[in-house]
Amino acid sequence: MTIPLSSRAIPSDKTGVQALVFDGKEAGVVERPVPRASDGWAVVRTSLAGICNTDLEIVKGYMGFRGTLGHELVGVVAEGPSAWLGKRVVSEINFACGGCEYCARDLGRHCPLRTVMGIVGQDGAFAESVAVPIVNLHAVPDGVSDDEAVFTEPLAAAFEIREQVRIDANTEATVLGDGKLGLLVAQVLALAGARVLLVGKHDERLAIVRARNVETITFDAWDRTPRDVTVEATGTSAGLPLALAATRPRGTLVLKSTVADREPIDMAPFVIHEISLVGSRCGPFAPALAALADQRVDVRSLIAARFPLARAADALAQAQRALKILLAP
Amino acid sequence: MTIPLSSRAIPSDKTGVQALVFDGKEAGVVERPVPRASDGWAVVRTSLAGICNTDLEIVKGYMGFRGTLGHELVGVVAEGPSAWLGKRVVSEINFACGGCEYCARDLGRHCPLRTVMGIVGQDGAFAESVAVPIVNLHAVPDGVSDDEAVFTEPLAAAFEIREQVRIDANTEATVLGDGKLGLLVAQVLALAGARVLLVGKHDERLAIVRARNVETITFDAWDRTPRDVTVEATGTSAGLPLALAATRPRGTLVLKSTVADREPIDMAPFVIHEISLVGSRCGPFAPALAALADQRVDVRSLIAARFPLARAADALAQAQRALKILLAP
Repeated sequence: MTIPLSSRAIPSDKTGVQALVFDGKEAGVVERPVPRASDGWAVVRTSLAGICNTDLEIVKGYMGFRGTLGHELVGVVAEGPSAWLGKRVVSEINFACGGCEYCARDLGRHCPLRTVMGIVGQDGAFAESVAVPIVNLHAVPDGVSDDEAVFTEPLAAAFEIREQVRIDANTEATVLGDGKLGLLVAQVLALAGARVLLVGKHDERLAIVRARNVETITFDAWDRTPRDVTVEATGTSAGLPLALAATRPRGTLVLKSTVADREPIDMAPFVIHEISLVGSRCGPFAPALAALADQRVDVRSLIAARFPLARAADALAQAQRALKILLAP
Repeated sequence: MTIPLSSRAIPSDKTGVQALVFDGKEAGVVERPVPRASDGWAVVRTSLAGICNTDLEIVKGYMGFRGTLGHELVGVVAEGPSAWLGKRVVSEINFACGGCEYCARDLGRHCPLRTVMGIVGQDGAFAESVAVPIVNLHAVPDGVSDDEAVFTEPLAAAFEIREQVRIDANTEATVLGDGKLGLLVAQVLALAGARVLLVGKHDERLAIVRARNVETITFDAWDRTPRDVTVEATGTSAGLPLALAATRPRGTLVLKSTVADREPIDMAPFVIHEISLVGSRCGPFAPALAALADQRVDVRSLIAARFPLARAADALAQAQRALKILLAP
C-alpha cells in the first residue's frame, strides 16, 4: 500500500513515540518504536484516550497483558489508505482474523485468533500513535467533539446489552454501580423506554443520570426489590450476589464486571429461580456514535480530569476513585 | 367437599402413615398423621417413589427442609373429587398460591408463596400417602407402567431445557454427568434432533443413551471441544468450571445442578465470551408423559434397585452411588 508522503502526519524520521507501558510489574511512560501501517492497517495519531476500569484491572494482573495500555481513543488517521488520511476516527478494539468461522458469522469480536487493543497481544492507545486494522475504524460525525467521541467504545459496551436482551417500555431494570459504565448503561436502557433504577454510592454521580429519565438510589437506601433485568456494573466481585438477589424469577442478570479475584458464589438461586446470566462485553459502535451525534446520552458530565501522557501515573492513580480520566498524548 | 366413603382407599380409622422424615439431623422412618384432603386437594396413595439427588442434598442441609422427603411419585388417588378417585396419577411438585402475578402469568412453578413437595414447607412422597393440590395431578396413560411413570418429574425437568433454549437439528450439545438427570437430558435433547455428547464416568451408564442417538465419552478421554450448548448435570460444584470451559463464545450453559457447597468461581469467561448461563429447574409434565407413552425415552434402564419404605435408610445410602432407587411404600 502506498501512502502519499505529504499526508504522513508522523515524520518518517521519528523513531519513537511516548507510550504508557505495563511490563507485568508496573506501568510507566517509556519510548516505543513508532507504529507503522502494514497492509490493511492504519496508524492513528491519538487525540484523546480514556482510562477504563479494565486498564486498572490489567495493572493488577488481569489478562496477563504486557505492552502499551489503552483501548478508548479518538484520533486522526496519520498513515493508511488515502480515503482515511486526516479523518477523525474511533476504533473498535477487537482485531479479528477475518478468516475463521466466527468472523464468517460476523462475530469478529469473538474471533478466537483476535488480538485486543491494549488488552490481548496488541499495543494500545495510551501513546502518541497506535496501529489499528482499517476495518476497525469508524469516522466521527462532525457534530461529535473529541471529548464525546472518546466515549464511543464504553458507550458501545452499554449498547451491547440491547443486542442481547430485550429491553423496551415493559422492562423494569436495575443497574448496580455508578461508575462510568453503570452511568452509561442506565442512560442507554432508559433510551429504549425501560424504567431504570440506578443504584450507586455517590449522589453527585447519580445526579448525572437523573436528568436522563433514570431513577436513582443509594445502596444504603435501596430495598433490593427484584426486577426483570439487573445489570451488574459495580466492577467488584461483591456485586454479583447483590444482583442475583435483586433479579426476579425467570429474570435476566447482565454481567458487565470483569474482576481479577474469585469469590465463592452460591449458584443455587440461578437454578431455583431459573434466572439467566448474560455475560456482556464489547458492543456495536454505530448506535453509540448515533446517540452521541443526537446528544441522547450525556457523556461530558462523566469527565473528571485530563492529564498529559507524561503524567500517566498520576492519571491512573486518580482513575481509581474518579469518573472518566482522559489522557492527551 | 364430600367423598363417597366407598371410594376411600385409606381406612378412615387409620391415624398414622409410615413416612421417611428428615428432622434436620438425620432421616428415618417414623409414623406421621394420615394426610387428609382439604378443599382443592387430593390424597394420593403412593405406589412408587423415586430418590433424587435433591433428596440427598436436603439430607446434607440443602434448603433447610424438615419433614417427609420425596417429590417423585406415581400413585392412586385415594381421597378427592370423584372424577379423580381411583385414578393412577403423577403430581407436579410446586404447590402455587394461584392468586399472585406469577400464577397469573402461568408461572406457578415460580410462585413466591409456593410450597414444594418434600423440599419447601410441604410433606413429600416417601410415605404411604401424600396430599397434593388437585390442579397438580396428571393422569398416567394406560400404556405407561408405574416403573416408567415414576420418572415423570425428572423427565419433565429435562424437557424444561427445551422450553428455555432453542434446541434443534443445528444444535451441538454437551451434557456433563451420567447421573439420572444427565441420562434423561441427553435423551431429551437428542429427541429434538440435536447432536448430543454425554460425558460421564461409567461406561455401563453411557451405554444406556448410546442406544438413543447420543454420543458418549468418559471425562478422561474428553477433549473439551467447546460446543453451542452445555448442560451441567454433574450434581457437583466441580462441574460448572468444566462446563464453562466447554461452552463456545456466545453459547449457552444450562445449569441443572443444585449443590449445598459454594466454590470460588472465575466469572470473567462469561463476560469475555458473552456466554449465557440459564438456570433450569422443574419442567412441564405433558411432554414427559407423552414421551413415556411413546417409548421415546428409556427410563427403565435407569432403575438400579427398589426397597420397601421400611428400608429407606439403606435406600438413601445406595442412592449415593447408584442410578434410580425406588421406594415402594
